[in-house]
Amino acid sequence: MTDTIGGLAVTDLAREFGTPLYVYDADVLRERYRQLREVLHPEVGILFSLKANPNVSICAVLRSLGAGAEVSSLAELLIAGRAGVAAEDTIFLGPGKSAQEIDACLATGVHAIVCESWGELAEIDALAARRDTVARVVLRINPSFTVKGSRLTMSGKPRQFGIDEEQALEAAPRVAGLRNVRLIGVHVYMGTRILAEEVAAENTTRILDLAERVAERLGFELETVDVGGGLGVAYFDGERDLDLRRLADLVNPAFAAFRARHPRTRLFTELGRFLTAESGTYLVRVRQVKESMGEWFAVTDGGTHHHMAAVGVGSFVKRDFPIRLLGREATEPAPNWRVTGLLCTPNDTLSTHTPLPPLRPGDLLGVLRSGAYGPSASPVLFLSHGHPAEVLVDAGRPYLIRDRDRPADIVDRQRLYERAPEVPSASIP
Amino acid sequence: MTDTIGGLAVTDLAREFGTPLYVYDADVLRERYRQLREVLHPEVGILFSLKANPNVSICAVLRSLGAGAEVSSLAELLIAGRAGVAAEDTIFLGPGKSAQEIDACLATGVHAIVCESWGELAEIDALAARRDTVARVVLRINPSFTVKGSRLTMSGKPRQFGIDEEQALEAAPRVAGLRNVRLIGVHVYMGTRILAEEVAAENTTRILDLAERVAERLGFELETVDVGGGLGVAYFDGERDLDLRRLADLVNPAFAAFRARHPRTRLFTELGRFLTAESGTYLVRVRQVKESMGEWFAVTDGGTHHHMAAVGVGSFVKRDFPIRLLGREATEPAPNWRVTGLLCTPNDTLSTHTPLPPLRPGDLLGVLRSGAYGPSASPVLFLSHGHPAEVLVDAGRPYLIRDRDRPADIVDRQRLYERAPEVPSASIP
Repeated sequence: MTDTIGGLAVTDLAREFGTPLYVYDADVLRERYRQLREVLHPEVGILFSLKANPNVSICAVLRSLGAGAEVSSLAELLIAGRAGVAAEDTIFLGPGKSAQEIDACLATGVHAIVCESWGELAEIDALAARRDTVARVVLRINPSFTVKGSRLTMSGKPRQFGIDEEQALEAAPRVAGLRNVRLIGVHVYMGTRILAEEVAAENTTRILDLAERVAERLGFELETVDVGGGLGVAYFDGERDLDLRRLADLVNPAFAAFRARHPRTRLFTELGRFLTAESGTYLVRVRQVKESMGEWFAVTDGGTHHHMAAVGVGSFVKRDFPIRLLGREATEPAPNWRVTGLLCTPNDTLSTHTPLPPLRPGDLLGVLRSGAYGPSASPVLFLSHGHPAEVLVDAGRPYLIRDRDRPADIVDRQRLYERAPEVPSASIP
Repeated sequence: MTDTIGGLAVTDLAREFGTPLYVYDADVLRERYRQLREVLHPEVGILFSLKANPNVSICAVLRSLGAGAEVSSLAELLIAGRAGVAAEDTIFLGPGKSAQEIDACLATGVHAIVCESWGELAEIDALAARRDTVARVVLRINPSFTVKGSRLTMSGKPRQFGIDEEQALEAAPRVAGLRNVRLIGVHVYMGTRILAEEVAAENTTRILDLAERVAERLGFELETVDVGGGLGVAYFDGERDLDLRRLADLVNPAFAAFRARHPRTRLFTELGRFLTAESGTYLVRVRQVKESMGEWFAVTDGGTHHHMAAVGVGSFVKRDFPIRLLGREATEPAPNWRVTGLLCTPNDTLSTHTPLPPLRPGDLLGVLRSGAYGPSASPVLFLSHGHPAEVLVDAGRPYLIRDRDRPADIVDRQRLYERAPEVPSASIP
């Protein structure tokens, strides 16, 4: 039996495209989206957060199912457009937008610019005035409440994101003077990697309530509410995936009640990791197998530079992503393996104690659930190794969706300077 | 008074090249090298570890002073060569070298391949045989001893690096059969960011002793010993830079005694961060200034994606790199600022409590001592923002040594797939 991704043998994929390699399964990507779409209140739009995986083909698969886009840079805006996402289904957010980015939002006519500070609001107003247009702006609010249960808290404490609830509620005089900004909605993002249905539900309920209060106090019509997202996937021992049916049972009544009061308001949730993580496998090949002071190491051709999340840099405790031997059968008893990358740092450890069969050079290992925050969230240039290739498998065919960096791709971006000849400061006596 | 780098006003540099920007001062780079060269035993060669800063122009400045190169990838090997480093002054190391990399070492004739496992030794032997040549190999040893005082311990515990001392000392029968490998030396790397002179000295003494024992037991002539490096620079409150005079007083006698016994052995130390850190400034511009729940935030146009070290991801406690307001005078009393990047994560915090004058949009901030493990060690593609520009200032002139990534540079590497039309499996009845 050979392991497959999207019906193709991983051994064939590794041979055709080389390793290390990211492989995405379009069917899994679609399945994840549809599972959520099926149970979520039908009036809630799903925005794909490109930060989780900015590849244009991944975005195109999700767009074909109806997803909009949440973008945070000029390049992401371009990618969403190339993937076919309509501007009116795109929002742009981020605490430090450049004037060029704001201007591109106005030029393309995105559904909304999510504004994160009073300074930015004034800047949007000025840039819209220069274009003689009116910018549609959603206010990102940093609520006074916080909800436990996310991995990185974005709200309810001092943050660079959004405008404090307290300030927003008092801002009627401030926003009254804006001539080229139309406030159309509220955005709140509570945190990431939420794996408890109750937490997601409580977030949603409180955000919808907050949106109503802000709109009422500032006197604008609520055309859009984005309740954020942050739904997680289980990576580690002891975690479990969200029960979508249960999640829907908890959040849908809140959405329904809100829609009853605001029948024309567009509702959005934004999801990145949740949509793409499971579809991706990071495929690496074992280069060396060695024993050091009683422990077994498999040194692979991958590492931190492609998959910082699996390496766990930034976490207090190293926890292991799921890793499997792929491409050959092995039923021997399993020792504990340390699977490492090829970098020159002990932090470059993909797993510290994964039970795997006896490994040998040439073996293929798959780091599962790796479709989110992979190469784009990793230091791909470390040791000048460069970005891995990425392949999307759809309908039994593999498509190269991102070229592997060759050494020339890296070297040619640098310039060797020729120092100007030094002219003695008193060369003429 | 205007702040300058290499005699050029930072305001001019920011205007000409834009922000965020890495600026390196060639004088500081040279000064650092010369200070060490002046006091270090004259027979000890200095290898520049390109992993700290792989830019070809940085490498060229150090080469012009006499530095060799320690490289770990095909691209780094190319860069060192383009910078003018001779192959005989270059060594290649890393726990997971590819066959292509080993072959490139043989083709270019690097001084030595640093071998990190028995499997690799056999592979080097086989690849050298195919070229009908003899590979010069230095064994990297993971010693049985460890020395406290480095930030990341590379040795003295189970590691993917090198060959355990115990195994090496018993390996005479194993290496006797190699026909196309000539063992010429020993390499040991104890750890990084060493800021205590005694620790560096003890490392050196013990490594020289170990090298002698390994060579004697395996019966090869010691042509090369690389004692590693790992000298640090002070980044944080409470740290102090190494006293080079004192360091030299401690290590030189060990080198001298070794040279007396082995007058023809090449001695090397390898340094990256120590040589380049101080020369670099990460220059960012404040985009928004805001107050959130009583704390002041300056949101800049830089962030984690360019300078992960300053953000401190991977450290247990966030400590702040030195940050200064540049380009304008300000003498007002200093509140504590949180300086953040523009990314959508609360981790994107350059400093948590830096005393700075009241800031305003447009202000330039410099993150000092940022010449090592900057963009090449950071997730430059996060949110698809891309690599910053890099400028080297030499003899009063600025040289662009790395182009800024434009959105097209990122978008064009991706491919939008066109799904093949599905052929029903039984389309012909």
